[in-house]
Amino acid sequence: MKNMVYIQSGGPTSVINSSLFGAYSEAIRHPEDIDHIYGSINGIEGLIDGKLFDLREESGEDIELLIQTPGAALGTTRRKLPQDINDPVYMDIVHNLQKFHIKYVLVNGGNDSMDTCNKIAILCDELNLDVRVIGVPKTIDNDLASTDHTLGYASAAKVVINTVYSIAKDAACYKKGKVHIVETMGRNVGWLAASADLVPDDGRPDLIYLPENKFVLDDFIKDVSEVFKKKGYAIVVISEGISFERGEAAEVDSFGHAQLSGAGAALAEALREKTGITSRVVELSLTQRANPFLLSRNDRDEAIEVGKEAVIAALHGETGKMIVMKRVSNKPYIGRFELADLGEVANAERKIPAEFMQDKTRMSDKFRDYLRPLIEGNVHLKYRGGIVLLTNFKKKLVK
Amino acid sequence: MKNMVYIQSGGPTSVINSSLFGAYSEAIRHPEDIDHIYGSINGIEGLIDGKLFDLREESGEDIELLIQTPGAALGTTRRKLPQDINDPVYMDIVHNLQKFHIKYVLVNGGNDSMDTCNKIAILCDELNLDVRVIGVPKTIDNDLASTDHTLGYASAAKVVINTVYSIAKDAACYKKGKVHIVETMGRNVGWLAASADLVPDDGRPDLIYLPENKFVLDDFIKDVSEVFKKKGYAIVVISEGISFERGEAAEVDSFGHAQLSGAGAALAEALREKTGITSRVVELSLTQRANPFLLSRNDRDEAIEVGKEAVIAALHGETGKMIVMKRVSNKPYIGRFELADLGEVANAERKIPAEFMQDKTRMSDKFRDYLRPLIEGNVHLKYRGGIVLLTNFKKKLVK
Repeated sequence: MKNMVYIQSGGPTSVINSSLFGAYSEAIRHPEDIDHIYGSINGIEGLIDGKLFDLREESGEDIELLIQTPGAALGTTRRKLPQDINDPVYMDIVHNLQKFHIKYVLVNGGNDSMDTCNKIAILCDELNLDVRVIGVPKTIDNDLASTDHTLGYASAAKVVINTVYSIAKDAACYKKGKVHIVETMGRNVGWLAASADLVPDDGRPDLIYLPENKFVLDDFIKDVSEVFKKKGYAIVVISEGISFERGEAAEVDSFGHAQLSGAGAALAEALREKTGITSRVVELSLTQRANPFLLSRNDRDEAIEVGKEAVIAALHGETGKMIVMKRVSNKPYIGRFELADLGEVANAERKIPAEFMQDKTRMSDKFRDYLRPLIEGNVHLKYRGGIVLLTNFKKKLVK
Repeated sequence: MKNMVYIQSGGPTSVINSSLFGAYSEAIRHPEDIDHIYGSINGIEGLIDGKLFDLREESGEDIELLIQTPGAALGTTRRKLPQDINDPVYMDIVHNLQKFHIKYVLVNGGNDSMDTCNKIAILCDELNLDVRVIGVPKTIDNDLASTDHTLGYASAAKVVINTVYSIAKDAACYKKGKVHIVETMGRNVGWLAASADLVPDDGRPDLIYLPENKFVLDDFIKDVSEVFKKKGYAIVVISEGISFERGEAAEVDSFGHAQLSGAGAALAEALREKTGITSRVVELSLTQRANPFLLSRNDRDEAIEVGKEAVIAALHGETGKMIVMKRVSNKPYIGRFELADLGEVANAERKIPAEFMQDKTRMSDKFRDYLRPLIEGNVHLKYRGGIVLLTNFKKKLVK
């Protein structure tokens, strides 16, 4: 018996299940090498607790719908593995790897998850287990090192671009408008907020604020007020991770209400207090990572492909590696898959390079050239009666 | 010279410009009756200030893209006309009706706008002006009287249903989940929040709260806690208009921070204080009304048709009327257009009837049967490089 286990880890993306679909599709083509294809329920926790299910027992329709289903179809986790390799949790993992005859471990995730992946690879190596561990990159944050981009970023960026454009049309249609503050995800990096710079001129954000730049509240108020006075409204995009002294808002925090309001709400309040200008805050929230309606076909196809490549790499005997994307050509866009050492990738964080910024509130041509090919192509989804069809696995536990 | 002026009024919908497209398409078929087709810039304000532009001077592409463009392409307004018909503003309107040789006035809007429409009709009638005034119904709120549904509601409902379903997949994938509170638009009526009840079972909201029902905070906390304990997470949909005593949150209001948080944020905070359970609040905000990515084809097609019908009614000599939708058959869905007196429609508000509710937090089969046919059919949009194409009128003023 040589089985494969697939682990989804960290925050989902809109194409996270496309990589699972790719891996599954490739794995079933190798019955001589892979017997069962297991899904680990709730990330690494499934492997720790012995909670796996056999993907071949799920319906064909549920497997097919993976390529348009957001959320982690296997379940995911935020759990990080301890540094100490003698921690008993590792014994549970080894126990279940052996109990379920696992030869191939695929971990689909972001920074933290590649750390998990790396630890399992090291563990198996030290114990001389014949287990191959491969990382499959995924995060809407686009902050993984060693790869041109991460799978899931382009679809999330496409949501940001198209939603900001649509919102801008709504914002522009009043004589007396408002400041519209659109808040994107991205705690430490601004890749998603930056993507809004690709909106065409008739809806392009006036100002974009990234965590990579020092945020000065007075500059923000001055710049936004100027745009507002000139245009009668303003489109401002901020990354949730911009950090600033909240001034009076800090008092509110002491009442325990800090969780209520993100950066956008706090900035709207500061702007109102100082200038009287009212804002509408639109937090894009989960619509960025759980949104099959604006999938980039390129992203979706690459996400499927990277799942396949991970299986192929494992079958070729690779371990302790992550699949990375290299850009061979930009026009036309051609990407290539390569392998990188997990040690290089784990816990490293890629911020937006300076050459991608024109100034503190605008992106450069170079950035737009970088992102443009990644968001291309649309995906036609399957609907029933106007409602999208999504995977709903039964998850019958393997004994 | 017999010209037509088209007015967009109130909050936009995702199909507001489809009705404009329909009216334009019909109007150009009658060159013997209609010379110029003017757009009034920023609703009734354009007619008051004499700011009109000729739609035939816009590019063919911009006209075609109307059917996928959110926001009000002509500009809109929240301005209400005064009760007193002797107010000088009415003289400005009459002046411009005559100056621009307007014979046909089409007003596309909701409750307040139909009041505007009605006032203009009465004015023209009293002054014996040969002007025909027709209302074109539009609002995502679905709260207009005398019509089976309003144009724009179904597309917004489709956004709510599909987004809640997608978010539910994201919410369900953690072992230790959160309460997800999704806040929809709807200050006085719960039609949009209610629509979430059409989400399939594997993502259906556990609890839905409408402004039509008395909201009791203690019941909310008890009901949500119970679901959370059972499932490990919860999907709760609330209408922004639910009203409740905010208790301690009221203190925060005195600091002037009330605008920061909508109902969802206040409920999340109340839940956390009483039970320690944390929530994620997703305010759907403008994505409900400025979202071409989940258009209902039925809604879009009816929105186009209603614009045509309005022109035909005006050409037939009708005035002081609004086009309304009647449902002739549900399976298959067949709708019919009729005329209703503006006096009946203006300022009347249609709440959700009792028979559409199963209990205080669930909708009935009858409601689901009502909504299902309206959200059917998808619309394929035109994109360029992964970015939706939207109308951008030049709006050269008519002298």
